[in-house]
Amino acid sequence: MEKITLAMGNGGEENAKLIGLIQKYFANELLEKAEDGTLLSKLDSPVMSTDSFTITPLFFKGGDIGKLSIAGSCNDLAMMGAKPRFLSCSFIIEEGFLLKDFERILASMASELEKNVAFIVTGDTKVVPKGSCDGLYINVTGIGEQMADVSQRRIEEGDMVLVSGDIARHGASIFAAREGIELESEIESDCQSLWPLVADLLEAVEVKAMRDATRGGVAAVLNEWARAQNLCIEVNEEAVAIDEAIKGICEILGFDPFVLANEGTFVAVVRESESKDALKILKKHNPSAAIIGRVTSTYPARVVLKSPWGTRRFLDMPSGEILPRIC
Amino acid sequence: MEKITLAMGNGGEENAKLIGLIQKYFANELLEKAEDGTLLSKLDSPVMSTDSFTITPLFFKGGDIGKLSIAGSCNDLAMMGAKPRFLSCSFIIEEGFLLKDFERILASMASELEKNVAFIVTGDTKVVPKGSCDGLYINVTGIGEQMADVSQRRIEEGDMVLVSGDIARHGASIFAAREGIELESEIESDCQSLWPLVADLLEAVEVKAMRDATRGGVAAVLNEWARAQNLCIEVNEEAVAIDEAIKGICEILGFDPFVLANEGTFVAVVRESESKDALKILKKHNPSAAIIGRVTSTYPARVVLKSPWGTRRFLDMPSGEILPRIC
Repeated sequence: MEKITLAMGNGGEENAKLIGLIQKYFANELLEKAEDGTLLSKLDSPVMSTDSFTITPLFFKGGDIGKLSIAGSCNDLAMMGAKPRFLSCSFIIEEGFLLKDFERILASMASELEKNVAFIVTGDTKVVPKGSCDGLYINVTGIGEQMADVSQRRIEEGDMVLVSGDIARHGASIFAAREGIELESEIESDCQSLWPLVADLLEAVEVKAMRDATRGGVAAVLNEWARAQNLCIEVNEEAVAIDEAIKGICEILGFDPFVLANEGTFVAVVRESESKDALKILKKHNPSAAIIGRVTSTYPARVVLKSPWGTRRFLDMPSGEILPRIC
Repeated sequence: MEKITLAMGNGGEENAKLIGLIQKYFANELLEKAEDGTLLSKLDSPVMSTDSFTITPLFFKGGDIGKLSIAGSCNDLAMMGAKPRFLSCSFIIEEGFLLKDFERILASMASELEKNVAFIVTGDTKVVPKGSCDGLYINVTGIGEQMADVSQRRIEEGDMVLVSGDIARHGASIFAAREGIELESEIESDCQSLWPLVADLLEAVEVKAMRDATRGGVAAVLNEWARAQNLCIEVNEEAVAIDEAIKGICEILGFDPFVLANEGTFVAVVRESESKDALKILKKHNPSAAIIGRVTSTYPARVVLKSPWGTRRFLDMPSGEILPRIC
């Protein structure tokens, strides 16, 4: 068998073979016991999160839809201060999809699961006729165990805002890959699992809020927080690192790097007194990490960007089409 | 706004409006607090299950993709003896999808949630360009609290097998709707939430195993069990109720009703001594419920159908394409 067939989604013999293939990559005790669902161990502070992935292209510099699906869903848990534990995984596969590509994606998921010490415990497969989806869509829903009370409602005036690395990598790399831009080879997505870094951070300081800056980029995260708490977030533009190749693409094409997606870079809020300790941990994982701003009450529910020349402008909530299917 | 636009999946302003619309239908305390994930209450015996729905047509006699997605996912939990509690919900929507259809589907999901006393606590929306998916796909992942130890590994020789109603309704109704068959109006899908019935059943008897007979129908469930336990399941064909209109379609088109999907009908295994009590409960909800067979050791890992005339044939695990996109 070289391609996924409609029969592999029939609930019968061929479906069982496809499920067998998937189970080989995700093998664990709970998945082996899975029936219509899977009984898990007791959970004291469960956090639940879900994400569907429709990215194109399926393979890109720095990752693929498989790595992204596990990293992305585990990152949503990590951002809530929760250690990823149990994941479900559901595939919608287009008839004719190459089995070798599917296996490559499964292997990539398995490797990312290891980094999170998380397990796929239940799953679903649907095969749709040619033309009914574009290749492969993956849903990963995660359950984590919360280790610290991390929530945007804890953000207060005087807190400091940090970013864990340089921004806009994922959006720029997907755009470059799609458009065949020459700089493509230089731009790698930041796609990665954040739990190992977050675990270090939570041990060192009291993190008030975290959010990975995915769709809508850093601009969306900061605006959501400013609105939720009716506070102002003031950002020093020059503190935010952006790769030179990405700056180039953004200048030529008129993209705002603050709006481009990241898939392994997050924004965090801590008390001012803990901001330097937090930065030290972040810098160990990525030297581009920085303290980028402060929570104030200057313009409630707004985000302000301060340029190196002392000018100020509002950084708005993104709107319009931006880049579809980047995750 | 009349149609879903690409901008509604951008992670920014328009996305927030779409999420606001969804939250209106699913309103509950936990969903309101949702950030990247949602903190749930402590769970002693959590069961996790996932299902993606790609059914076509989206609206059919007896339900729609919204009702099906909630009922189907909650039924997977119910079949594990688990009371549905917390659900995640992820939409992949094709650009141009009518908002009024989307709202109709949301309303239908909300009504089915009530029947299960379950809550959507976290979600995700992706909008893909025209042609990248066919209308709307929904993933619902559920967490339930297990109330009884229900598992196929408890099935033993001598146990009785029951079915909760007449079979093949869902598959036949979807097929009829797609092909514009005249009998269409008479055939209604069995799509429904099973938890209320299962709760009654668990109170009355000790259920060993349950499985809703979805893709692959009753044939797939019985074969999975026979293989898992290396036992034989012997079924009295005439005990299994099938609607006359459905029988007609199957005879004309050569379908086997044992292979057609159900979406609100399940097979259960209980001790012989409790089988009549179990039947009484099932019949209260559907008079077509019946004791249909017995677990034996005659042909290990096989399912045997006994005709009213005393002949016997193996009921095999389904194979081939059957009907794609029925769930």
